[in-house]
Amino acid sequence: MPLSHVGSKMAQLSGLRGIMDDIATTVDSSESGWLNLSIGNPAPIPEVVSAWRSWTQAALDTSFPAVSCGYGPSRGAASLVDAIVDHFNDRYGWGITGRNVVVGPGSQMLCFIAAALFSGQGPGGNRRLVLPMSPDYTGYQGLSMTSDAITGVPARAERLGERRFRYSFDFSALRDLDGVGMFLLSSPSNPTGRSVDSDELQELIGLAQRRDAPLFLDHAYGRPFPAIGHTHVDPPWQEKVINCFTVSKAGLPGERIAFAIGPERPIDAMVSFLANSALHAPQLAQAALARALRSGQLDTLVTEVITPFYRDRRRLAEKLLGDTMPAAVNWSLHEGEGGLFCWLWVDEPWFDDVEFYRLLKRKRVFVVPGRHFFAERQGHPGTAGHSTRCFRISLSPAEDVLAEGIVRLAEVLEDMSANNPSA
Amino acid sequence: MPLSHVGSKMAQLSGLRGIMDDIATTVDSSESGWLNLSIGNPAPIPEVVSAWRSWTQAALDTSFPAVSCGYGPSRGAASLVDAIVDHFNDRYGWGITGRNVVVGPGSQMLCFIAAALFSGQGPGGNRRLVLPMSPDYTGYQGLSMTSDAITGVPARAERLGERRFRYSFDFSALRDLDGVGMFLLSSPSNPTGRSVDSDELQELIGLAQRRDAPLFLDHAYGRPFPAIGHTHVDPPWQEKVINCFTVSKAGLPGERIAFAIGPERPIDAMVSFLANSALHAPQLAQAALARALRSGQLDTLVTEVITPFYRDRRRLAEKLLGDTMPAAVNWSLHEGEGGLFCWLWVDEPWFDDVEFYRLLKRKRVFVVPGRHFFAERQGHPGTAGHSTRCFRISLSPAEDVLAEGIVRLAEVLEDMSANNPSA
Repeated sequence: MPLSHVGSKMAQLSGLRGIMDDIATTVDSSESGWLNLSIGNPAPIPEVVSAWRSWTQAALDTSFPAVSCGYGPSRGAASLVDAIVDHFNDRYGWGITGRNVVVGPGSQMLCFIAAALFSGQGPGGNRRLVLPMSPDYTGYQGLSMTSDAITGVPARAERLGERRFRYSFDFSALRDLDGVGMFLLSSPSNPTGRSVDSDELQELIGLAQRRDAPLFLDHAYGRPFPAIGHTHVDPPWQEKVINCFTVSKAGLPGERIAFAIGPERPIDAMVSFLANSALHAPQLAQAALARALRSGQLDTLVTEVITPFYRDRRRLAEKLLGDTMPAAVNWSLHEGEGGLFCWLWVDEPWFDDVEFYRLLKRKRVFVVPGRHFFAERQGHPGTAGHSTRCFRISLSPAEDVLAEGIVRLAEVLEDMSANNPSA
Repeated sequence: MPLSHVGSKMAQLSGLRGIMDDIATTVDSSESGWLNLSIGNPAPIPEVVSAWRSWTQAALDTSFPAVSCGYGPSRGAASLVDAIVDHFNDRYGWGITGRNVVVGPGSQMLCFIAAALFSGQGPGGNRRLVLPMSPDYTGYQGLSMTSDAITGVPARAERLGERRFRYSFDFSALRDLDGVGMFLLSSPSNPTGRSVDSDELQELIGLAQRRDAPLFLDHAYGRPFPAIGHTHVDPPWQEKVINCFTVSKAGLPGERIAFAIGPERPIDAMVSFLANSALHAPQLAQAALARALRSGQLDTLVTEVITPFYRDRRRLAEKLLGDTMPAAVNWSLHEGEGGLFCWLWVDEPWFDDVEFYRLLKRKRVFVVPGRHFFAERQGHPGTAGHSTRCFRISLSPAEDVLAEGIVRLAEVLEDMSANNPSA
């Protein structure tokens, strides 16, 4: 049963998927004692779990026959769409209506739909899905249904004093790109923790306008929820911008609820694609989210629990790294401007992220090797050395796991350094 | 922001969607009193609603932090995959493993994924999505991401005594088709209520083998659940067959849970596509279904409640139609071998399904005009007259709604007949 071209592309999994499968299989099937710093799940904060449970319980108690036992609108349940409209208008003064909103079964699916609508072969030839800053979320690389349709523009790594660095956009490379179908960016970024600032955002919006291509902004870690990190700007309401929000990192990843807000025409196209492909998002969780938004309780949870939790966890991780990592090794940490992760760069010729993963696994610790986050890694010379010298650790594990994991991580770095003659 | 070719196709909605929007807008926004015989939702049977509510409540009580507050496997939650494996092995002796199963966010999405994997442009040119019997489910027409990639083979309508007819496959036309990427069939069928029999199934499987194309069988209304109608055969376990099952018609359409069972290679490809596009299906409803299957309670619900409910409802509809429809009009009903609907054919030159819809709406009744279920309607001469002379009514409305709706439907038919000079 031969696969179509689309089928051949979509039946492939990214290299990172193999790593994540290795981790899941190992951690699930063996005795405990593993220190898993690779986690992409949000932390199991008791107040957060309890809040989502109570909103879901209330939805079950009041709405189950209507929402779960009947089909729903492809745009999203009316009660949720209305709550989203009011929430964003009240908070940001946008003046949107329900025609600007689409609710989908997770932000991955909304990204997939937008990428299919706006990139690939069209009347004007092939238009690419462009990641304006690479590294970025590895799941973006699986979105495109055609081969070599994704272009990642390598970020520039800039040192910021001792043990810190920050990526910057290569706007001149971005301005030179043609055949752009859509720009896609996570901010705050998975994996780096970087947040776009106001000037950068205006530059990106200008590019989107000149290319007549949407700028799809993935706010999975940003405002208004979960608001992990300080971020520099509010989500923008602009002609070419599609903003994507999800409740996954605010505590409910398993139920796959996300929504996009943008101009009517692209949002209408997304609603139709959703109607043709998946009908609509699951409805009990939509009812729970409508309640959480409408009551203001999600805002309170974010302000009082989620934002402070990750702020403290990030401070702890920075302190642990500073106290523990070997002084003789040239490591640095990306500036923490939001998001669930610490992104580290070991700028040593002997460092290899996959070898590091392998050695750490012997010590019963998991991290995520960095190379899979670089969309340009095939053939592009820009970050050849850099892209194999990074790794990601999560802020979600318990504090003692994080502390002991960083101790072992430092040991492995010392060993690698000591064993390498050039070091 | 120009759309890609895929985008242009997927941003279109079928003609039926306009009708369904008209119905939803009218029924929701106006005073009550409408008789809606167009409903695609399963009937709100109290025992069924109550059962799904209790399974969902149990999942919430026992598993919420683990299933809703964490990401899950793209193949499906392990507890559900295991329950499916055991259920189908116990019931049908198939000998499947978890590698033969993929759980997805609704059967529409699983159909969409399979159509994308196996039809469209590929190494051997363009391979079509073939509906071996047209009319069939109208949602299939929105699946394909390329234009004119769907081919429906017109069914032959055969009269079976007074007021009854049944479609048969045009196997000679099917044997002549080349460039087949996938066969797709609902059985029992939406809209016709027809079920494939054993000889027909063997013929279809033979065609799939000769074309090296999967036969994707959509059991949305069949065995093992909801088992509406008697059906002729069990789901087949065969090399080229992908079986698709959903809990939507068994009572939980709003939560979008379905699964496919087939050979490892195509199922693995579907899992990867799902991982790249939507990550995984929502998990609380997966946990509820695992419980319903494992406990045997879903089987009991089907046998004791769902199957008898629709059997009785179908008998009532047949009696009401026989007692009420105008004797002078040449109407007939498709044999009821399963599914949620009655499919009627008014074989009169003056009958037009859309005009009938419009006149019935004046009498505050909604039915579904038949033409949109015919995938071959563009350009194919085979069913030119027939395809505008059918309509669908649902078995889901309450008995009094069904009865009064059929009275008004008969009145409109009498009026149309009387007003037409050729009648």
